[in-house]
Amino acid sequence: MSLQQIDATLQRELQQLAEQGRAKPRERVITDYVPAKNGSGPRYRLEGQQGLFIRMNSNSYLSLGNHPALIAAADEATRRFGTGPGAVRFIDGTYCHHTALEKRIALFMDKPAAKIFNSAYTANCGLALAINSATTLWAGDRLNHNSIIRAMRICGVPGENKAIFNHNDVQDLDRCLDSAAPGITRVIVVFDGIFSMRGDFAPTDRILQVIEKHKDRFADGIISVIDDSHGIGAYGKTGRGTAEFCGAAPDIIVGTFGKAFGVNGGFVCTSATIVETIRQKADTYIYTNPLSMADCAAATRAIDICDSKEGLDLLKTLNRRTRQFREGLEQIGLETIPGPHPIVPLLVRDTMRTRMLVNGLFDHGILAVGLTFPVVPKGDETIRFQINCAHTKADIDYVLEIMAKLVKKQGCK
Amino acid sequence: MSLQQIDATLQRELQQLAEQGRAKPRERVITDYVPAKNGSGPRYRLEGQQGLFIRMNSNSYLSLGNHPALIAAADEATRRFGTGPGAVRFIDGTYCHHTALEKRIALFMDKPAAKIFNSAYTANCGLALAINSATTLWAGDRLNHNSIIRAMRICGVPGENKAIFNHNDVQDLDRCLDSAAPGITRVIVVFDGIFSMRGDFAPTDRILQVIEKHKDRFADGIISVIDDSHGIGAYGKTGRGTAEFCGAAPDIIVGTFGKAFGVNGGFVCTSATIVETIRQKADTYIYTNPLSMADCAAATRAIDICDSKEGLDLLKTLNRRTRQFREGLEQIGLETIPGPHPIVPLLVRDTMRTRMLVNGLFDHGILAVGLTFPVVPKGDETIRFQINCAHTKADIDYVLEIMAKLVKKQGCK
Repeated sequence: MSLQQIDATLQRELQQLAEQGRAKPRERVITDYVPAKNGSGPRYRLEGQQGLFIRMNSNSYLSLGNHPALIAAADEATRRFGTGPGAVRFIDGTYCHHTALEKRIALFMDKPAAKIFNSAYTANCGLALAINSATTLWAGDRLNHNSIIRAMRICGVPGENKAIFNHNDVQDLDRCLDSAAPGITRVIVVFDGIFSMRGDFAPTDRILQVIEKHKDRFADGIISVIDDSHGIGAYGKTGRGTAEFCGAAPDIIVGTFGKAFGVNGGFVCTSATIVETIRQKADTYIYTNPLSMADCAAATRAIDICDSKEGLDLLKTLNRRTRQFREGLEQIGLETIPGPHPIVPLLVRDTMRTRMLVNGLFDHGILAVGLTFPVVPKGDETIRFQINCAHTKADIDYVLEIMAKLVKKQGCK
Repeated sequence: MSLQQIDATLQRELQQLAEQGRAKPRERVITDYVPAKNGSGPRYRLEGQQGLFIRMNSNSYLSLGNHPALIAAADEATRRFGTGPGAVRFIDGTYCHHTALEKRIALFMDKPAAKIFNSAYTANCGLALAINSATTLWAGDRLNHNSIIRAMRICGVPGENKAIFNHNDVQDLDRCLDSAAPGITRVIVVFDGIFSMRGDFAPTDRILQVIEKHKDRFADGIISVIDDSHGIGAYGKTGRGTAEFCGAAPDIIVGTFGKAFGVNGGFVCTSATIVETIRQKADTYIYTNPLSMADCAAATRAIDICDSKEGLDLLKTLNRRTRQFREGLEQIGLETIPGPHPIVPLLVRDTMRTRMLVNGLFDHGILAVGLTFPVVPKGDETIRFQINCAHTKADIDYVLEIMAKLVKKQGCK
């Protein structure tokens, strides 16, 4: 066989992506982790680069991935049970670590039951496969994560059963629900808790109010689903996420162990019936090995920590550093999307300046993500920073100092 | 909010599944691993059960999951880099362990490049997202794995762009290719290498011959994709899988680190251009954390072992045990689907007898999977056994002895 023809076609497509500014840059490779010392937080080495880098682009908000208790839990599980489960869940690939993690996350989220997946991505897909029906309307925020969009695809939701409301616009959600076609028996309102590119949060309390108004019109009611991958562990008074922050209780909570909890994997917390339906019908749960026992043990330990005084202290540190960084950016005279989340988007509003700033940061050992058109609309060009609680006060000061210098040099206030 | 209404509806659906015999049984939970000793292979304890169990239903064909070298590699990676990557690949979630594993598996499979995923499930989905187009015809074996079916769904392949050929029937594939609609510019022929419920293999050489006959009719040619999750590591003279067994070289090889390699995760090995297209367009690669560094380190070590004298010896043991088991079943007068793969399906051809045998095995500490209608057609009721090379000669003898006893008792020859 030969791939010559398709390779040539794909090369043209890749070329086009590059020309449109949509191509993802070459992946940088982390080759070393340097633990915190002397008032400086952890640093990383990159393949082919001199010097040390600070990650201002990690989702590990509580910096738990390098916590000795998580590492010990992972190692112990591997030594006890090996590196892999060797089967899918229903064919004896279920270990006590899987069920323990399910119980622990359900307890933490105050829901009757939970199912774990290999990722929040496959959790969204599996949930959709479990709760979709031919007469279900899906209403989603315009800025929802890719995994929610693909979740509707994987279960073949037809276009007429999908509605999109403008970002965080509850009036527009109201309109979507108003215009549900006759014959719709179930509505699923699905939204990110924290929007990863902006750090803003879904007004979950007000979304639930709108739902309440409409729910009696549908035989199965209206089910609210929040994907709070960036919120859980990092947001709300006790780290329960956006729902806690808003004082609201969505029906179904999707989340990840791969961000604040510092490990990998996803979960769905909700009623025992929906969880059992996932077990019976969610192909992305049924037909794939579950997480390693090490991942489960580490994630369980991470939740224990979040649910303790140590966790509350970590949250306080995270909030303090986030405030320090946000206030520092304001003092330099820079524009952000306000809010308390550790995702801090700096609105540069210009493609060239965004690129120059991101490159300037990199030259000073700072990793951050530049978002330019067409990834964001023209005029919304942004640098996304993410605060982790292992960042020290001095680390944040350093990043602010470099930002001030770059801004001054490039005259991009 | 309340889930009362949807819960009631889902309860009725679950009830129906149970009545149709489609419901998955309650998951058993492994609570202990007992290493091999005194001529007996590893055993497991189950929650709520007395005694020890032998797993005749594990995909860990080479029993590498408990290999000291894999455990050491996993532990070392966790200690060095932590329990999670903290970001997606293109936002500095790429560690040297990820790229090392990609290089290692590409080398092992003798392909120019590879991309790793969290599972073979998401590998199939991501590959489809990368290589599909509006004028692509997908032709697949009728018994293909669920992840291949869902892969077409997740990228919205319309019904008219899908063709199904009868299981392992190259003449029927020929017919599918003959009847490709005008306007089709690319054909993807996708098939399992080893079919997980039957242990039989795709006649890859003959499939490629049929493809060769038709390929010039399509601008981008015909691309062959083998998902050899059950083959790679466990099949073929040197463990390169079904392609090696058949002396054929498909264009794209999908596989898993979660079966013979004893860890978790999936991969695609193919041309550098397709791999780069995956990196740019495969949402299930782009928008999700990659495997933990521990998983990658352990998988890399597993491939090293497979690619050494130790690996060849493991393969020999696996083949010896498989032969012992197959011959033993024949001696009892039982019917199997012939072939050298460690998946050994015992055709019982009766629902009640299948259940009684599986329960009888369980009562004697043997875990195996019963497949009854409607999971398999009526008359094809099967017990699926899987041989692992940690099974000792005495283990296989024991399972055969119990089988003979049960068959005699139940008169189900």
